Amino acid sequence: MYLMKNVEQYAPQFFPVKNPPMRWAQKTMIEKAPIWCSVDLRDGNQALITPMSLDEKLEFFRYLVKIGFKEIEIGFPAASETEYEFCRTLIENNMIPDDVTIQVLTQAREHIIAKTFEALKGAKHAIVHLYNSTSVAQREQVFKKSKEDIIKLAELGANLCKEYRAKTEGHFRFEYSPESFTGTEPEFALEICNAVLKIWEPTPEDPVIINLPVTVSHSMPHVYANQVEYMSDNLYRRENVIISLHPHNDRGCAVADSELGLLAGGDRIEGTLFGNGERTGNVDIVTLALNMYSQGVDPELDFSNMPEIVEVYERVTRMHVYERSPYSGQLVFAAFSGSHQDAIAKGMHWREEHDCKHWNVPYLPINPEDVGRVYEADVIRINSQSGKGGVSYLMETKYGYHIPQKMRESFGYLVKGVSDHAHKELLPEEVLDIFTKHYVNVETPVSIPEVHFVQKGENAIGTEATISYKGSTETVHGDGNGRLDAVSNAVKAHLNMDFSLTTYTEHALEVCSNSKAVAYVGLEKNGKTYWGVGVHSDIINSSISAFLSALNAMLMDLKK
Amino acid sequence: MYLMKNVEQYAPQFFPVKNPPMRWAQKTMIEKAPIWCSVDLRDGNQALITPMSLDEKLEFFRYLVKIGFKEIEIGFPAASETEYEFCRTLIENNMIPDDVTIQVLTQAREHIIAKTFEALKGAKHAIVHLYNSTSVAQREQVFKKSKEDIIKLAELGANLCKEYRAKTEGHFRFEYSPESFTGTEPEFALEICNAVLKIWEPTPEDPVIINLPVTVSHSMPHVYANQVEYMSDNLYRRENVIISLHPHNDRGCAVADSELGLLAGGDRIEGTLFGNGERTGNVDIVTLALNMYSQGVDPELDFSNMPEIVEVYERVTRMHVYERSPYSGQLVFAAFSGSHQDAIAKGMHWREEHDCKHWNVPYLPINPEDVGRVYEADVIRINSQSGKGGVSYLMETKYGYHIPQKMRESFGYLVKGVSDHAHKELLPEEVLDIFTKHYVNVETPVSIPEVHFVQKGENAIGTEATISYKGSTETVHGDGNGRLDAVSNAVKAHLNMDFSLTTYTEHALEVCSNSKAVAYVGLEKNGKTYWGVGVHSDIINSSISAFLSALNAMLMDLKK
Repeated sequence: MYLMKNVEQYAPQFFPVKNPPMRWAQKTMIEKAPIWCSVDLRDGNQALITPMSLDEKLEFFRYLVKIGFKEIEIGFPAASETEYEFCRTLIENNMIPDDVTIQVLTQAREHIIAKTFEALKGAKHAIVHLYNSTSVAQREQVFKKSKEDIIKLAELGANLCKEYRAKTEGHFRFEYSPESFTGTEPEFALEICNAVLKIWEPTPEDPVIINLPVTVSHSMPHVYANQVEYMSDNLYRRENVIISLHPHNDRGCAVADSELGLLAGGDRIEGTLFGNGERTGNVDIVTLALNMYSQGVDPELDFSNMPEIVEVYERVTRMHVYERSPYSGQLVFAAFSGSHQDAIAKGMHWREEHDCKHWNVPYLPINPEDVGRVYEADVIRINSQSGKGGVSYLMETKYGYHIPQKMRESFGYLVKGVSDHAHKELLPEEVLDIFTKHYVNVETPVSIPEVHFVQKGENAIGTEATISYKGSTETVHGDGNGRLDAVSNAVKAHLNMDFSLTTYTEHALEVCSNSKAVAYVGLEKNGKTYWGVGVHSDIINSSISAFLSALNAMLMDLKK
Repeated sequence: MYLMKNVEQYAPQFFPVKNPPMRWAQKTMIEKAPIWCSVDLRDGNQALITPMSLDEKLEFFRYLVKIGFKEIEIGFPAASETEYEFCRTLIENNMIPDDVTIQVLTQAREHIIAKTFEALKGAKHAIVHLYNSTSVAQREQVFKKSKEDIIKLAELGANLCKEYRAKTEGHFRFEYSPESFTGTEPEFALEICNAVLKIWEPTPEDPVIINLPVTVSHSMPHVYANQVEYMSDNLYRRENVIISLHPHNDRGCAVADSELGLLAGGDRIEGTLFGNGERTGNVDIVTLALNMYSQGVDPELDFSNMPEIVEVYERVTRMHVYERSPYSGQLVFAAFSGSHQDAIAKGMHWREEHDCKHWNVPYLPINPEDVGRVYEADVIRINSQSGKGGVSYLMETKYGYHIPQKMRESFGYLVKGVSDHAHKELLPEEVLDIFTKHYVNVETPVSIPEVHFVQKGENAIGTEATISYKGSTETVHGDGNGRLDAVSNAVKAHLNMDFSLTTYTEHALEVCSNSKAVAYVGLEKNGKTYWGVGVHSDIINSSISAFLSALNAMLMDLKK
C-alpha cells in the first residue's frame, strides 16, 4: 500500500552516460567565474504572472548591465510586438554598451528567423540563439517526428541563420540549444549538436555556444555533470565551442547542476537573479556567484548592494525574493537561537581581537556587510528562542553596554520571557527598554537622595547617607574599605538585613558624544543574585545607583 | 580590480576527503526512501520570527504524523519552558502514536541532560539527540578548547546520557551530532563519533544515530558525499549505526547534499516541510520525497493534498511557501508561454489517446493532480506570453469548445493582445468572454431573423432568407450544394461581394447538462480569414450563426 497511490505511474525519464569518466569529480572548487548570461528578460519574463512592460524591461536591462552582465538574453522578438519593440528600442537608441552582447531566442522556422534578424538589424554585438526540442517526449508527443527529421529541422535553422546573418547589418554570433536536453539520449544530443556545428563551423574568431539546458530536471546533479562531460569530450571543434548550461530547478538542484556542470566542462551559465524563470525557476545567479565569492573566487558580478537589487527586482517583476533565498533573503543572516547568537558574538569578538586572514565567523557564510546588509537589523534578532549571547551582543554593539558575564544569563532569561509572553520578536529598542526599566537607576522602594564620604584611613571610608524607604527619610552612617562597601554597610545596618556584593564592574559609555559612566553591581542573598546598573556622568553616583538598583530588585523579590 | 572588493578576505573553509573512493557516484537513483525525521518543531521553529505557540505546535505535530513522519524532533526541552511544557503535554496526554518516536535536542552539560530526561519521563519511544560543535572555527573561537577537550566534552555527554537513561522511565535511543560537521576535519569528526559510539556500544536492538549536519554549507555536494562515504566506511560498529544527514541550504544545495549523501551511505534525513529552518533553511523534505516519487520510488510520506499542507504550514509558522518552491509553490506547474502550453496540451492529448505506461508530459515533472493541484487553475495560465495552444486547451478542457486548428492562431493573437494591452493575467472566464464577444452569434451589422430551406435535387438546396442590414430588411434567395452554401450565396448576391468558405466544423457542446450544437466557420477574402462561431440547440441555426458571425467580422474589418 502506497501513501501516494500513483507512484507506479512514474519511472526515470533520463539517460545516464555509460561508464562516465567523471574527471570533474576530482575537483572541489570552481576556480574562475564562468561567462554569465542573464535570461531575466526572456525566460524570467515569460514566467511572470504579469510580464514586464517596455519601460520596466529597459530599467531592468540597465540594472543588469550595472551589476556587470556582459551577455543578456532580451527576448524572443519574433514572438510578440512588445519583444520586437524592446529589441529595436535598445538598438536604435544606442542603449547597449559596446562590451555588452544582447541575445535573442528563435525557433528553426524561416519566418521567425527572418523576423529575428529584422529585429537585430544594426546590433553591434548579438547572439542568435536557435533551439529545437530534442527529448524523446517532445519528438514523440509534440513534433511527432523521427530523430532524422529533428536533426533536419536543426540543420534547416542553422543554415537559415547563416544565410540571414550574411545579409543583415550587424555583428552576430550563434548559439544552439538542444531543448529538453536532459530528456534526450546523450548520443542523440551529441549528434544533433555536431550537425549544427558542422554547418556553423566555429572558429576562434567566431566561436559557437552550445547550450545544454536542464529544461526540466529529471535526474541528480552528478548525472547531469556526466552528460556535460560527455558532450565536452565529444563536441566537434570543441576548442571553438563555448559550453553553456541552463538549469531549471524542478528538483531543487539547479545550483548543484550548474556547479557540477561547470566542473565537468561548462564555460557559461544562463540564469536569472533570485532564480526567477519558468515553473520552479532558472538557476539563481546570485547564489552561484556568491558561492564562488565565499571561497575567495572573484564572481565578476557586483552584488554588494543587495537591498537595492532586491528592490528593483521586486518592483519590475512583481515577484518576491523568498525570505530564505541564499545571500539575498530577509532571514538568511538572522540568528534567533541563543547558541547561534552566542557563537556569532564570540566569533565577531575573535575577529576584532585577532588578525584573521579569512572570514570564518560561525553561522555566517559571508560577512553580511559585503552584500549591503546590516548586523543589528539582519543578524542578531531577538525572540523567545534567543539567549544571553544575542541580547548581550546587541546591547554591546548597538548601545555600548558591556554587560558582565555573570549578569548575562539573568538578562537573557528576562528578555526571552518578555518575548515568549508577548509572542513576538523584540526590536533592539524594546530590548534596551527592558534593560533600562529593569536594571538602570531603580529608586524604589529605596532611594538615597544624598551621600557624603570621608576618608578614615588608607583602606577605610566612612559614609553619611540619606536613605528614603517606606515614606521615611533618615540619615545613616557606615564604614567600609571603599565607598560602595561603606554605603552597603550603612544600608545593611539600617534595614537590618544581610547580603553580599559579589560583582562590581564599570566602564565609560558614549551617549550622544557625551561620555557617561556605567556601573554594574551583583548582590547575593540566599544563593540568588540580584543585578543593578547605574548610569551617571559621575562614576561615584553610577556605582551607588547600580548598588541601589540591585538592592531594590532584591527587596521587590523578597516582598513576593 | 574586483567588483566586490572583499573577495580576498575569503578562502575555502572545508576539508575534502583525500583520494575519495566515490562508489556513490556509480549510482544514479535513490532506490528506497530514507528514514525521515521532521525537525520542523525544533530547527524550523527556532528560525521563525514568531515561534509557534503550544497550540500551534500541537496542531503541527498532529499534522506531521498525518503526513506519515515516524520520527519528529520536537524541541530542546531544557532550553525554555514552552518547549518543556510541549514535551510533557505530548507524553502526559498520550498524544504520540505507538509507531512514532519523538526526538529532543540536548547539549553535553549535566543540568541540561538532567532536565532533558525529566522532560522525557514516561515516553514510549524517544531519541535523545546529543550534540557539540566540532568545527575548527567553533573550537577556536567559541569554545577555545583543544581537540582532546572537545572529545572529552562529547564523552561526558555520552556517559551522562547513558547514566540518566538507566534511571529514567521510558524507552530511549541515542543520537550524536558532531555539530558544524562540514567545517570539521573528517578525521576528527570520525574520531569524536567513534569515541561516542564506544561509550554507547550500539547493538541491533539499540542502534545509534550518527548525524552528519551540514550546519553551514561550505562546499559542493560531491565534497559532502565523499565525507559521508568516508564516515560510513569507517564508523565503529557501522552495522548498528544509522547515518543521518541534516543539510542546510546556505549554498542552495541542501537537496543535492541530501541526495548524494544518501547515495554515499546516509540512511536517514533530518529536514523540514518547504525547507523552513535556520537562515536559508533545512533541506525541504517535500522536494526530496517527490523527487523520489517522480522516478517511481515510494516516498513513504503523503503529499497528495499539498494545498492543505501549505495552508496549515503557513498558518502555524507565519512563513510563506515560495511561489517557485518545487512541487508546492503556486507557480511551479504554471505555463504562461505559448510553446510550453502547446507542448503540454499535446502531451495531455497524447496521454488520452495512448496507453502511456509512465508519466512523461513535457514541462510537467509530475502530474499536478497527484499533489492535489488543478489543471485549469494551476497549469495553463493566460497572459501576453501565451499562445494558441494554451488558450485552445483551456477552452477545450474548461468550456468544451474544440476550436479548429486553423482558427487557433487568430484566437491566440486576440487573447495575447487583450492581456498585453491590459498588462495583466487573464482568468479563464475572461478568456471565455473574449471568445464569446468576438466570435459567438454576432448579429451586427448583418442579421438573418428568418430562414427557410427547400430541397431542390440530390445535392441542391434553395433558401429564402430575411436579411437585416443597415436599417433595411429584405427577403433574398439563394441556391447551393448545402444549407450553408445556399445562405452564403444568397448573402453574396444581396451584398454584392465575394468571399470563400474555407472551414466548417461542428460538435456537440455540453452546457449545464443540456447539449447544444456549436459550429465554426472560416471565410476568406483577400487572403485573410475571418472566423465565426454559432451556438444553438439546433445545428442548422448554429451553422448559420457561425457563418453570420464570420461575415460580420469581415464586414467590420472592411469598414476600417
